[in-house]
Amino acid sequence: MELYNEIKELCQGAKTASYSLGKKSTSERNNALVKIAEAISLGSDEIIKANDIDLKNAKDNGIAQAMLDRLMLNEARVKSLSDAILHVVSLPDPIGAGNTFTRPNGLKIECVSVPLGVVAMIYEARPNVTPDAAALCLKSGNAVVLRGGKEAINTNKQIVKIIRQALKDCGFDENCVCLIENTTRESASILMEMRGYVDVLIPRGGKGLIQNVVNNARVPVIETGAGNCHLYVDESACIDMAVKVAVNAKCSRPSVCNAIETVLVHKSVASEFLNRFYEETRKYSLEFRGCGDTCTILPQIDLATEVDFDTEYDDYIISCKVVNDVYEAVEHIRKYSTGHSESIITENHRNADYFVNSIDSCALYVNASTRFTDGGEFGLGAEIGISTQKLHARGPMGLSALTTQKYIIKGDGHIR
Amino acid sequence: MELYNEIKELCQGAKTASYSLGKKSTSERNNALVKIAEAISLGSDEIIKANDIDLKNAKDNGIAQAMLDRLMLNEARVKSLSDAILHVVSLPDPIGAGNTFTRPNGLKIECVSVPLGVVAMIYEARPNVTPDAAALCLKSGNAVVLRGGKEAINTNKQIVKIIRQALKDCGFDENCVCLIENTTRESASILMEMRGYVDVLIPRGGKGLIQNVVNNARVPVIETGAGNCHLYVDESACIDMAVKVAVNAKCSRPSVCNAIETVLVHKSVASEFLNRFYEETRKYSLEFRGCGDTCTILPQIDLATEVDFDTEYDDYIISCKVVNDVYEAVEHIRKYSTGHSESIITENHRNADYFVNSIDSCALYVNASTRFTDGGEFGLGAEIGISTQKLHARGPMGLSALTTQKYIIKGDGHIR
Repeated sequence: MELYNEIKELCQGAKTASYSLGKKSTSERNNALVKIAEAISLGSDEIIKANDIDLKNAKDNGIAQAMLDRLMLNEARVKSLSDAILHVVSLPDPIGAGNTFTRPNGLKIECVSVPLGVVAMIYEARPNVTPDAAALCLKSGNAVVLRGGKEAINTNKQIVKIIRQALKDCGFDENCVCLIENTTRESASILMEMRGYVDVLIPRGGKGLIQNVVNNARVPVIETGAGNCHLYVDESACIDMAVKVAVNAKCSRPSVCNAIETVLVHKSVASEFLNRFYEETRKYSLEFRGCGDTCTILPQIDLATEVDFDTEYDDYIISCKVVNDVYEAVEHIRKYSTGHSESIITENHRNADYFVNSIDSCALYVNASTRFTDGGEFGLGAEIGISTQKLHARGPMGLSALTTQKYIIKGDGHIR
Repeated sequence: MELYNEIKELCQGAKTASYSLGKKSTSERNNALVKIAEAISLGSDEIIKANDIDLKNAKDNGIAQAMLDRLMLNEARVKSLSDAILHVVSLPDPIGAGNTFTRPNGLKIECVSVPLGVVAMIYEARPNVTPDAAALCLKSGNAVVLRGGKEAINTNKQIVKIIRQALKDCGFDENCVCLIENTTRESASILMEMRGYVDVLIPRGGKGLIQNVVNNARVPVIETGAGNCHLYVDESACIDMAVKVAVNAKCSRPSVCNAIETVLVHKSVASEFLNRFYEETRKYSLEFRGCGDTCTILPQIDLATEVDFDTEYDDYIISCKVVNDVYEAVEHIRKYSTGHSESIITENHRNADYFVNSIDSCALYVNASTRFTDGGEFGLGAEIGISTQKLHARGPMGLSALTTQKYIIKGDGHIR
């Protein structure tokens, strides 16, 4: 109950802060962000010192090397955090006047873009989410409640301390950026219940976190990140292109959500494609798992199970399936996709059209790698996450995803 | 378990139907709607016969007169159902091509507007929701799963039977429009769990229904309808206008969500306004409940409690409070509002600006009645509900609220 009250009080503080923040001008918000970027640069040593404690704890807990790398901040990385904030300053303000129209009865209706209010984020070990999320929320006029993972708690505390001091120095309510320092599952569960204070909750992390939020949240949620992505190599594909794109989509960064997990290949080009794809990925030691037909072509690999096709490996593993045609490929993707990104390699326009029009995912590619599903690559300037849901925002979310609208209606005693 | 499987199968059928529906052209969808409108006209007698059974059951159960009136269909009302569908036909198609842009690397990105997929609706006794929702969903390329209230079940069954036959006659999958015939709480609860099949659930009904959905749904939800709306009469208000707008906002139709529940009035005009507002509402027998200051001005009324200010009466009852200034009015509204519609009557531009910029509701009025918060009045053409949430859609929801977007990206072997 004590923790509940503590978090409720913190969220109330953020709500109150959001009222004053919503009235700050574009230049006031930008000035505050510049001050925050400077303060983070100046505080580099303290941030790195706090990060050292987190790294030591992580090592003591036997955390994997990849995780340690995500957690680690050095001078160059702190500088990049500060630079990312300055980049957000350069983006257009998503808040402000919108369409105005006058109804036949003379009522003047203005639809304005306004902040959501309080954005909450639950995330895991990456401390860069802390200043990134704070900057995007402040830019869009939202207060933010951060609940990062226990691995990065000391780093997060130090970064948020610096941000709050900078906000105070600019005459902003420091509660525009709040950190929940308790990193238990319980604190996350309580945050999910804060109806009336939290306007949207954005979880960023693994499948377990996202599922927990979807199942338990009573505040509005934007789901992010689940990416069981597919590449289909059509009968008419240029095999050179197919191999090049497949290698890129799987091996350039297997841990991210826009990497592919399954390759589907038309039976008539299966042998040529699979043999070449297999050869090209030896240097990554990519592990193949395949359907029966795939295993006939590549007898050295293991048989893929139903579970494989349903799994987001996020690792150097790929499942392969030989299909009869584009229709079977679409059926397979409909069954297993998480609605993120899918690509077809083809020279046949009808098959390309069928593929992009039949699959219900946020990004459908023709002759390109799924790795482009990203706010920066789409030209949004910055990204707060990749929405895999359909309501509000779909795909990479830029600043406008952190806004809502309201109507201001002016009359002269109009009654209905 | 049997009911669970039955509903799951029905939702699966709707999902499958949504795939084929999503590919129908604008004119195919419009033609089907014209056929449905004709079939409903032609089936008028059967619909009224089914409705008679519902009316008889309702009377046997001692249902209130107001409810009976909402439930009742006669020939004129059936004609208006059919006309409403033809009106939807005349609206622009919300589905189709959007912005296309080319990135510096040559990738061509197109953002297209697509149906959500399967829309589910849980609603209560009004049978007009059945054809209205079906028409708006079909127009926007969505399959719909309807779960109406038990009071209208025979009417709903007959209307849906006619719609499904018309769909079939046009070569559409009849599962584009599905009705859950079981009207228990359990069937609603099961529908709320249909992740993967239901893309959005829109509850329409009273506070109990909305709260149940918000607390228990695991599918994405758009909340509608909660309307604890306020009118604030400022010091500088034209009292003639204030009285006229207050009477309209409260008494023109008290049962709807955009009617006001509380009037706040500046202390310096409280006596004049309250006395005149009270006099003007005698013909409606409007019941007043007031704060201490209000009761000093109108000694004949009862004292309002905390609960009154928190209540959406939806009836001929109003609570009144005398405030010191616009700041106190805004504070009160922030505390009690459900975020629907609020109005200020004032001749002071600064107070008007403060009011509309400080309150976090979907519609803020200056010198006009809150009753205008409505899809038709806003010029949206048709309305599937009024969203009181901030994500996806806010305020009156037209056809575009039933769409999402997807990105189609075309390259030439692009890798990242």
